[in-house]
Amino acid sequence: MEPVPARQSRTTKTAHVLPPDTNHHGTMFGGKVSAYIDEVAAIAAARHSRRPVVTASMDSIDFLNPIRLGDAVTVEGVVSWCGRSSMEVFVKVTSENLATGERQLTTTSFLTMVALDEEGKSAPVPQVIPETEEEKFLHDAAPNRREARKNRKKRLAAL
Amino acid sequence: MEPVPARQSRTTKTAHVLPPDTNHHGTMFGGKVSAYIDEVAAIAAARHSRRPVVTASMDSIDFLNPIRLGDAVTVEGVVSWCGRSSMEVFVKVTSENLATGERQLTTTSFLTMVALDEEGKSAPVPQVIPETEEEKFLHDAAPNRREARKNRKKRLAAL
Amino acid sequence: MEPVPARQSRTTKTAHVLPPDTNHHGTMFGGKVSAYIDEVAAIAAARHSRRPVVTASMDSIDFLNPIRLGDAVTVEGVVSWCGRSSMEVFVKVTSENLATGERQLTTTSFLTMVALDEEGKSAPVPQVIPETEEEKFLHDAAPNRREARKNRKKRLAAL
Amino acid sequence: MEPVPARQSRTTKTAHVLPPDTNHHGTMFGGKVSAYIDEVAAIAAARHSRRPVVTASMDSIDFLNPIRLGDAVTVEGVVSWCGRSSMEVFVKVTSENLATGERQLTTTSFLTMVALDEEGKSAPVPQVIPETEEEKFLHDAAPNRREARKNRKKRLAAL
Amino acid sequence: MEPVPARQSRTTKTAHVLPPDTNHHGTMFGGKVSAYIDEVAAIAAARHSRRPVVTASMDSIDFLNPIRLGDAVTVEGVVSWCGRSSMEVFVKVTSENLATGERQLTTTSFLTMVALDEEGKSAPVPQVIPETEEEKFLHDAAPNRREARKNRKKRLAAL
Amino acid sequence: MEPVPARQSRTTKTAHVLPPDTNHHGTMFGGKVSAYIDEVAAIAAARHSRRPVVTASMDSIDFLNPIRLGDAVTVEGVVSWCGRSSMEVFVKVTSENLATGERQLTTTSFLTMVALDEEGKSAPVPQVIPETEEEKFLHDAAPNRREARKNRKKRLAAL
Ligand SMILES: CC(C)(COP(=O)(O)OP(=O)(O)OC[C@H]1O[C@@H](n2cnc3c(N)ncnc32)[C@H](O)[C@@H]1OP(=O)(O)O)[C@@H](O)C(=O)NCCC(=O)NCCS
Ligand SMILES: CC(C)(COP(=O)(O)OP(=O)(O)OC[C@H]1O[C@@H](n2cnc3c(N)ncnc32)[C@H](O)[C@@H]1OP(=O)(O)O)[C@@H](O)C(=O)NCCC(=O)NCCS
Ligand SMILES: CC(C)(COP(=O)(O)OP(=O)(O)OC[C@H]1O[C@@H](n2cnc3c(N)ncnc32)[C@H](O)[C@@H]1OP(=O)(O)O)[C@@H](O)C(=O)NCCC(=O)NCCS
Ligand SMILES: CC(C)(COP(=O)(O)OP(=O)(O)OC[C@H]1O[C@@H](n2cnc3c(N)ncnc32)[C@H](O)[C@@H]1OP(=O)(O)O)[C@@H](O)C(=O)NCCC(=O)NCCS
Repeated sequence: MEPVPARQSRTTKTAHVLPPDTNHHGTMFGGKVSAYIDEVAAIAAARHSRRPVVTASMDSIDFLNPIRLGDAVTVEGVVSWCGRSSMEVFVKVTSENLATGERQLTTTSFLTMVALDEEGKSAPVPQVIPETEEEKFLHDAAPNRREARKNRKKRLAAL
Repeated sequence: MEPVPARQSRTTKTAHVLPPDTNHHGTMFGGKVSAYIDEVAAIAAARHSRRPVVTASMDSIDFLNPIRLGDAVTVEGVVSWCGRSSMEVFVKVTSENLATGERQLTTTSFLTMVALDEEGKSAPVPQVIPETEEEKFLHDAAPNRREARKNRKKRLAAL
Repeated sequence: MEPVPARQSRTTKTAHVLPPDTNHHGTMFGGKVSAYIDEVAAIAAARHSRRPVVTASMDSIDFLNPIRLGDAVTVEGVVSWCGRSSMEVFVKVTSENLATGERQLTTTSFLTMVALDEEGKSAPVPQVIPETEEEKFLHDAAPNRREARKNRKKRLAAL
Repeated sequence: MEPVPARQSRTTKTAHVLPPDTNHHGTMFGGKVSAYIDEVAAIAAARHSRRPVVTASMDSIDFLNPIRLGDAVTVEGVVSWCGRSSMEVFVKVTSENLATGERQLTTTSFLTMVALDEEGKSAPVPQVIPETEEEKFLHDAAPNRREARKNRKKRLAAL
Repeated sequence: MEPVPARQSRTTKTAHVLPPDTNHHGTMFGGKVSAYIDEVAAIAAARHSRRPVVTASMDSIDFLNPIRLGDAVTVEGVVSWCGRSSMEVFVKVTSENLATGERQLTTTSFLTMVALDEEGKSAPVPQVIPETEEEKFLHDAAPNRREARKNRKKRLAAL
Repeated sequence: MEPVPARQSRTTKTAHVLPPDTNHHGTMFGGKVSAYIDEVAAIAAARHSRRPVVTASMDSIDFLNPIRLGDAVTVEGVVSWCGRSSMEVFVKVTSENLATGERQLTTTSFLTMVALDEEGKSAPVPQVIPETEEEKFLHDAAPNRREARKNRKKRLAAL
């Protein structure tokens, strides 16, 4: 399989923060943000692999700043590393106060998406070619994150 | 007011096409697409004017190609021209078959968004500085479209 | 095919305007209104043709008056003219302040819906018989609108 | 207070039955129908009383026929009787197979809606003037239904 | 068929009350509650019968207390009695003011769910074994309720 | 502040998996599951602290088994440990094939919820009293997890 440049998977979703997305104090639910993160990661991984994909895992998410009713939220994802059938997707979430233009980092996260074949078994994916500085930085540190995830899953299975 | 470069208002929304977005033949509803168009235009206009905005009009929309369940749809908008309180926003919609990567133009549309002050009256907005070829092309032809819209509204009022 | 009276396609949808339909200033999104317009037009066209239909185009929409949180919105559609496989649907949107009973015209619009056969190709539809004064008025001016739409689409293709 | 003709409260909602409304066998959920019934009854009662309203009770609902994915569902309501602060609303639900035009009665139901004042206490409403045969028939039998509801609520309180 | 203990069907759904669930006075819609009731009853009946189920009827619902934006609502259901193909499900709804912990009974209701075979015909279900005091109490009085429902349906058919 | 037994915060949400929750291969989106996890954790934390809460972080989530259209999904949460203003909530997700009764563990996760005062600053919460074996087990290991989270957030800030 031909390696694929990271830019092919780059995906951006901007959305208005509306009443159903927020609690009654006007702050966006973390769960709504994580749903957007997963949607963007799934599109990015499908663009990379041209296959159906499922979410194998989401790494931890720290919500650094609240997002408020009326803000715009932007979620960007790109495939940062590939194994045989799994793709690590890096996702970054920022909010923008539309009245002032002030932007804040909400969170970053890594998801592992797995490509599936027709029978629902994990299927091979092409390697990714990082091009920008950020993409290269993320790509280089990926094997460490993968190692940490494997240990984590083993500990979980041991319980 | 300082004029604002078009790039400040540029807004992209990519979304998965899901069952509630489609009829039972798996084709996306035109109304769902137009709802996305309006959301993107509203964010673009708010980014340009830093004010609450409402949709004054949507120009006609021709749906050139169907969008299918499982596709990704991308909606991009940018402010193309400004009057005193109104902003013309150009929106382009493309679909992508995620399994093949094939992209199709769904439609393009112009919306007129109006900025509001605290009492809900129309409020002045800065001019836009077109920068790319496309932005300049859209900006130059805007007064014609504005004229056509005025005539259209007169005819409507006459009924 | 037997011509069909316009009344067979007449469709009414009344809905409460709820928080997810409005921005945080309590005004209904234009995109939500256009989604209702499309839904009503699709039902009207299916009632006329007894076939699956898709939206080929929405003519321009001028939003004359805002709709507010807590209002009722009423969307009415009727097939106003038919070609071989296309149906023009006229849609009228009014809002009602439920506390006072005051009604306002929000907008009117024309949509072109196309009937499809089993393979997704355009399929013939019966002619419509206009009966009321309004239906006749709309029917008589339809060929002009159709002409204008053809020119519009040509211009779009030329870009 | 001036009595109000029943026609002022008459409310119709037609909707497409979409995938989120149905189980995975393609049959509409009863709960989705009852949500539509309540929405229509609330609009009808607000149109009659010009006040905020709440649902005090829904009488029993028998679902006589299934509604399928792709059908249109029509929900009609009208105020059939008024007490001091309560309004009985009669609601009728029919489905239409859009491909054949066949219509089926899904259910009829009576709801009791109560008008509220600014402090959330029950507030007086005008009497209703039934005009059509159906409206008169429903109006005449209303006191019996009211009696049955009072007994029902007493039995419930006794538990 | 082996009888099944009631506990197998016991189903609990707790949810946050969000803006789309409430009118603009911040009170939850009765229709939203009835949709939750139906969802819980459908899961309970499927857990009992291990078959697809449909709602044949909802008995009357009295809404004793309002539920407010920001409350948690808890809906609990359990199969209380079985006929040949029908299951009576008892559902209880309570609200909780999350700031104070105060709980209020919203309503109780009985639904009749019918199990279906592959062709959509009513299919036999196992009997239920009531175990708790409440389950036994509900089970014993079920035949009376069934009788009342049959009479009710006959009266409806007679109209 | 009086310590509060863990059972006060115990929250269960069961839901039907419907078409909008799944991709077009009928598998539930990870993002939809994480949104349910966050909702349950938020209710559990509010029940414990009787305050508005926000999600400070979600620990990593491994999705062990797919959830399918038509399954029931059950999400259970309980406060497992408290700091000054933060609460660790343990959440467990299982799916149930309604046709067979087979249950599968989907994932477990820990979230950190922070209680807020009227000005949106972090506010003190009562300690939790673990009672069951599982609650005690989770409580004892919580300080280690907290340490790991602090290091994680520091590393993030360092980037
Ligand atoms: C969570 C938040 C209130 C913490 O603010 P802060 O200035 O760090 O507050 P404090 O220093 O008083 O810390 C409060 C508690 O949160 C804990 N905390 C803060 N960040 C954390 C994180 N990422 N993970 C776990 N715990 C965290 C602290 O350890 C502290 O715990 P303790 O009181 O039990 O000792 C703040 O980061 C915030 O508002 N984040 C956004 C939350 C949100 O809106 N989530 C949804 C996003 S869409
Ligand atoms: C993801 C899934 C397909 C992996 O199945 P499996 O039997 O472990 O498959 P394999 O052993 O072939 O592993 C496939 C890849 O997934 C990776 N993987 C599996 N579990 C993982 C996890 N929790 N985190 C990160 N990567 C994981 C493996 O390392 C392997 O990577 P590689 O091919 O790049 O080397 C399976 O666990 C699954 O279906 N999970 C549910 C997914 C889902 O439905 N998500 C939404 C839940 S609502
Ligand atoms: C429910 C339904 C399958 C019953 O069909 P039917 O031809 O009456 O079937 P049967 O005569 O075999 O009756 C089946 C059982 O349902 C019961 N039943 C039928 N209508 C009922 C009603 N309105 N209330 C209570 N029970 C009812 C019968 O008593 C019988 O019970 P039993 O088998 O335990 O003795 C049929 O009326 C139907 O499909 N209704 C629509 C259901 C639906 O789609 N609901 C959602 C609407 S949006
Ligand atoms: C409906 C409600 C306002 C009635 O309150 P109340 O203290 O009984 O008020 P009142 O005694 O003044 O009664 C008002 C009217 O409601 C009627 N009523 C009360 N409960 C009723 C019931 N269950 N069914 C039918 N009518 C009922 C009374 O008969 C009276 O009618 P009238 O004024 O026409 O003679 C109150 O029970 C309530 O708030 N319920 C919750 C409503 C709600 O939020 N619904 C959605 C729940 S999610």
